[in-house]
Amino acid sequence: MYTIGYAAQHSEAALAPFKFERRALRPNDVAMQILYCGVCHSDLHQARDDWGFSRYPIVPGHEIVGRVTEVGSQVTRYKVGDAVAVGCMVDSCQQCDQCRKGEEQLCRENNTQTYNSLDRITHEPTYGGYSKHLVVREEFVLRVPDGLDLAKAAPLLCAGITTYSPLRTWNAGPGSRVAVIGLGGLGHMAVKLAAGLGADVTVLSRTPDKLDDARALGADKLLVSSDAKAMAAARSSFDLIIDTVPVRHDVSPYMSLLDVDGTLVIVGQVGPIDEQLTVPFILGRRRLAGSPIGGIAQTQEMLDFCAKKNILPECEMIRMDQINEAFERMQRSDVRYRFVIDMASLDDTTGA
Amino acid sequence: MYTIGYAAQHSEAALAPFKFERRALRPNDVAMQILYCGVCHSDLHQARDDWGFSRYPIVPGHEIVGRVTEVGSQVTRYKVGDAVAVGCMVDSCQQCDQCRKGEEQLCRENNTQTYNSLDRITHEPTYGGYSKHLVVREEFVLRVPDGLDLAKAAPLLCAGITTYSPLRTWNAGPGSRVAVIGLGGLGHMAVKLAAGLGADVTVLSRTPDKLDDARALGADKLLVSSDAKAMAAARSSFDLIIDTVPVRHDVSPYMSLLDVDGTLVIVGQVGPIDEQLTVPFILGRRRLAGSPIGGIAQTQEMLDFCAKKNILPECEMIRMDQINEAFERMQRSDVRYRFVIDMASLDDTTGA
Repeated sequence: MYTIGYAAQHSEAALAPFKFERRALRPNDVAMQILYCGVCHSDLHQARDDWGFSRYPIVPGHEIVGRVTEVGSQVTRYKVGDAVAVGCMVDSCQQCDQCRKGEEQLCRENNTQTYNSLDRITHEPTYGGYSKHLVVREEFVLRVPDGLDLAKAAPLLCAGITTYSPLRTWNAGPGSRVAVIGLGGLGHMAVKLAAGLGADVTVLSRTPDKLDDARALGADKLLVSSDAKAMAAARSSFDLIIDTVPVRHDVSPYMSLLDVDGTLVIVGQVGPIDEQLTVPFILGRRRLAGSPIGGIAQTQEMLDFCAKKNILPECEMIRMDQINEAFERMQRSDVRYRFVIDMASLDDTTGA
Repeated sequence: MYTIGYAAQHSEAALAPFKFERRALRPNDVAMQILYCGVCHSDLHQARDDWGFSRYPIVPGHEIVGRVTEVGSQVTRYKVGDAVAVGCMVDSCQQCDQCRKGEEQLCRENNTQTYNSLDRITHEPTYGGYSKHLVVREEFVLRVPDGLDLAKAAPLLCAGITTYSPLRTWNAGPGSRVAVIGLGGLGHMAVKLAAGLGADVTVLSRTPDKLDDARALGADKLLVSSDAKAMAAARSSFDLIIDTVPVRHDVSPYMSLLDVDGTLVIVGQVGPIDEQLTVPFILGRRRLAGSPIGGIAQTQEMLDFCAKKNILPECEMIRMDQINEAFERMQRSDVRYRFVIDMASLDDTTGA
């Protein structure tokens, strides 16, 4: 099936219309029309080859919501018309211990990414959600629960699960004290999800002007990291800190905020972090960890949880042809809090 | 009571005989004659004020084994003649949540260290185990179980509990894969204790010549960290790595050896560690942590465990007047694996 998307042809190219073929359905495949696709910071990084492993042309997008248009002969879970979603991965080995535990994101043979990856059977490149249509094997298709706003649900597929997963791994819930660093696409979801799980939530910000935003998202408090007195008073007061800052930064000032056995989890930044002082680690038995997205079962759990609790990202809807401008704005942190492409804006025939 | 010990009078002074007073017994105090005292790297650091908070004169020593000579009127657990031990701390607030949990090492009001600290009541300096006599409140006195060699038991009080505690916190046991970095005072105990707990134990060494030593201590394997092929093959193969290296080093090459949800625990190094790459943290949900000594109850558990399993440090016995030479040798890593001072070598009257 021919479809149309937006692709970068090389690392310095703007995204532009791109016609390409989606594979014919295998027996376990689901075809969908994409209705909405969230814009993740990693889309920009990979379009520009910031991480050095991009393949061109590249069609970004891994926060995908759509409707089933066709199913393969062996598909049992979905039928035409179902509201479905696809996140960051579209396949894995399905055989290793991690896959068998439902942790496909940690597949020993590496999962197949939704874009900028190679199909496990044909070894052809995968193309993402900045497009009209998608074909994905049934096991990697999520169900969008009734009542969840389709337009706003898209960012849950990456920003949502990336923050939900560590909250669950480290048992955030009633009685736990969670802090969130960075109030962007991931950070604002971390606040909403932690609050939804019943935790006591604090937003960490360099400036006090985020108080209203933090409260509106469901946080109980704002802790201003440039306020030395407030930081000293908050020493040893958190069980879990979710660090969503996407650029190099020093986590040392935050480590001492952890209580005994507390963990700071990095979910945003790819690359080196500054040197650490070991004393706060040793004397407080504190921990520094990373966390990727969650598995398929946990992603479904998160979608169901969001539907039940009416938790949705704050989105700014854009047209497909606004994507390059959106990238520029995202780089300036000028988005509250996630861009979502309305794929109806992409004309099937002209790509305009 | 007057006693004699060895003290440094300033940061550049060699340790030399020093007469001082031990306090008169409070109702809950136990007085002991010190028989043996282990020599910890931190004794050297503090004698030389490497950490910037030393008070002089300083009498080091916190791996102490002795016999009870007198007990206060309210002491119930010990009687004259009992074989007892004292580790790194001699008091804590006893009121906070951590003390109530038996984690006095994490006391919210800070524990009182065996030396280079201030008594909670008199605010006088505490003096450590490089001396003939000691007075400690009952709650911080350990019982040396029958059958544990008194001379060799001393290093268990710091090197033993510092490695036993993280092994217990991170559930080392049958089926768990534990690696130990650094084969010194702490490292050799980590190997013995992890093996005693039933874990599969690997020693990480820069050179292959440690194989026999590693095996003799109870390790199953040696992994040579300078062997790139062996390191690549060992990727994602450990649940827990105990890092006992006492100087600045790069832990990055070791992080990737951790399996999903695995933890590298720093117990040796005080000070900054080199910058970390976040990708191995995020993609493998790996963790970096620190761990101090254990609480009093866990220290007793460790002593009982060592008696039951016949686990003892490898010790080189020295006379008190050899301490300065021992410090020099320790700094060159020329000790296998722990110096222990035979306190009978210290003459009560002359200090020679």
